[in-house]
Amino acid sequence: MLTRIDHIGIACFDLDKTVEFYRATYGFEVFHTEVNEEQGVREAMLKINGTSDGGASYLQLLEPTREDSAVGKWLAKNGEGVHHIAFGTEDVLGDSEAIRGKGVRVLYDQPRTGSMGSSITFLHPKDCHGVLTELVTSNPDH
Amino acid sequence: MLTRIDHIGIACFDLDKTVEFYRATYGFEVFHTEVNEEQGVREAMLKINGTSDGGASYLQLLEPTREDSAVGKWLAKNGEGVHHIAFGTEDVLGDSEAIRGKGVRVLYDQPRTGSMGSSITFLHPKDCHGVLTELVTSNPDH
Repeated sequence: MLTRIDHIGIACFDLDKTVEFYRATYGFEVFHTEVNEEQGVREAMLKINGTSDGGASYLQLLEPTREDSAVGKWLAKNGEGVHHIAFGTEDVLGDSEAIRGKGVRVLYDQPRTGSMGSSITFLHPKDCHGVLTELVTSNPDH
Repeated sequence: MLTRIDHIGIACFDLDKTVEFYRATYGFEVFHTEVNEEQGVREAMLKINGTSDGGASYLQLLEPTREDSAVGKWLAKNGEGVHHIAFGTEDVLGDSEAIRGKGVRVLYDQPRTGSMGSSITFLHPKDCHGVLTELVTSNPDH
């Protein structure tokens, strides 16, 4: 069961400049940064608010670490902007399997590692009215 | 001060089909529907979670009511997908004026009426790293 907007993933050319834009314009501070080599991104998480399921909602700013990563190719085609949206769940595997059973393509056979040790998968945007959609189960140890 | 992700605005060609996709796939139910003639949209708000500032986060599904509306033109160019993101604030006018003072173009001189009687304005996406960004003050009487 999806219980929150976990984050909005925003692709950018220059992570440091984009972080500075969000800080200077809105006062949003960096909560966490990491490099995810598997996804080919360097990212910053900006925590915006807590959520009623005990989690939180973030902006996830993403800079590709290589041009042939998914985000790198997306940026080359689209320019900067919203790359994906993510819903939080207690059970990313169970929920993604249930959604696969409804005919929506799930991009991974097994969840992979996302921000802050979370477990994530993605749903094909062509099956989701044009929205690349991520499902996330947070890592409680993080 | 921006205290929550208020909503993610998603443009679609057929509101009823898109509402049904979100209901059947994720179990998200319609919280509110309305037609905003000024914005040229028919919309459905799906409430996803409550937020730590006492508000909530929604998906806002948007179908244009006319081809020459902002959403209609955006859809013709981009196809379905995430159209904008919105942050909630207690003071849309004060915050937007402060942001205008930082050199970000604000699209309206005065806030206009958004979903559920809210007061809204938009920031120019070219000044926001490609993200059309809305600021929202909820209407407490709604």
